[in-house]
Amino acid sequence: MPFNIKDKVEIEEEGNMIKEFTVKTSRRNEFIDITDRVANIVRESGIEEGICTVFIPHTTAGVTINEKADPNVVRDIISALEKLVPEGAGYRHLEGNSDSHIKSTLVGASEKLVVSSNRLLLGTWQAIFFCEFDGPRTRKCIVQVIKA
Amino acid sequence: MPFNIKDKVEIEEEGNMIKEFTVKTSRRNEFIDITDRVANIVRESGIEEGICTVFIPHTTAGVTINEKADPNVVRDIISALEKLVPEGAGYRHLEGNSDSHIKSTLVGASEKLVVSSNRLLLGTWQAIFFCEFDGPRTRKCIVQVIKA
Amino acid sequence: MPFNIKDKVEIEEEGNMIKEFTVKTSRRNEFIDITDRVANIVRESGIEEGICTVFIPHTTAGVTINEKADPNVVRDIISALEKLVPEGAGYRHLEGNSDSHIKSTLVGASEKLVVSSNRLLLGTWQAIFFCEFDGPRTRKCIVQVIKA
Repeated sequence: MPFNIKDKVEIEEEGNMIKEFTVKTSRRNEFIDITDRVANIVRESGIEEGICTVFIPHTTAGVTINEKADPNVVRDIISALEKLVPEGAGYRHLEGNSDSHIKSTLVGASEKLVVSSNRLLLGTWQAIFFCEFDGPRTRKCIVQVIKA
Repeated sequence: MPFNIKDKVEIEEEGNMIKEFTVKTSRRNEFIDITDRVANIVRESGIEEGICTVFIPHTTAGVTINEKADPNVVRDIISALEKLVPEGAGYRHLEGNSDSHIKSTLVGASEKLVVSSNRLLLGTWQAIFFCEFDGPRTRKCIVQVIKA
Repeated sequence: MPFNIKDKVEIEEEGNMIKEFTVKTSRRNEFIDITDRVANIVRESGIEEGICTVFIPHTTAGVTINEKADPNVVRDIISALEKLVPEGAGYRHLEGNSDSHIKSTLVGASEKLVVSSNRLLLGTWQAIFFCEFDGPRTRKCIVQVIKA
């Protein structure tokens, strides 16, 4: 009954925009800054005041908000997650990516952002990162912008 | 001042539906697939485009999105959380369920989903799981569907 | 392109309210109950049915929902996070607060709450906590209330 996101989702109507874009990752664990792509969709929507949802339709990936100024921050987050949830540590699931699923649940599949004056409300140091935990792959991000 | 969810919450008006359902758990740590129940509420709402919030009004439970195809994935997530936050590891809170509260904060109390064409936008492998961390109990899930 | 939250954000229009308040923390790791402040903004908005977003515009802080009745619960959560992600454990980022960034990603930067009858829908034991991971500091919380 739920929707299978196979085809490209594109909706653009008064007060509601859903767009999708792809992210190509090149490592098993990798964070990719998607702030500009999300911000562009918000601008394109023309919605002045509202909510923006970033939703990752994958079970071995996620999305988080953190610092972009020093790329070492993201490297430290990835290392910490690898240490907390080591690869191949005697899991039952036989595809060898149980750690990826666990990281996905710890980090989360969606972020919600406030839209004001047609822009994302983000702190000075904040960026939105797509979190790859089972790459390299081509992944999808769904962005929904809704008018308040 | 905030609402105490004691009575059943049921709201059904133009562009806004709030429904509640119960989940019975049978183990201390257990994930229960609630995708169909959430999807049914979305369908019932008649809302074509919008946002669906799943909110868990408990402090020793949570909600996550992950893979349903192989039930071992969920078992591995539960085991990893038990390893990261062991039961009875010298906590101050005397009810013996500090680990349950900690897991609840790590996993989170809500999920936000995009609704399009009156259906939940979910990836091929994604399911919504109620996460019990202090069962067995009877628990509540709140689902809100709002029109874009 | 995204918004830099430098100035105070204050929006109050039909069906949409964005307010900001500050939180002063006094320790490096500290959870502060902000439930009443969020509930007051919801009441002030006059919005009967809708969604409330609490967004933290910082990369070394977060927000979570957990128990307030026994303050030891929050202390146990803080201790567990300190144990999972120790301070100064050989990180690359040289500002000495990598652990703070990691905790921020684990806990998350936003919470979404259901608003019904002009009140927050919260379980009997639930409170909303601002999570400081790199204090003491003066921090901002953004609260958005949107009509359904």
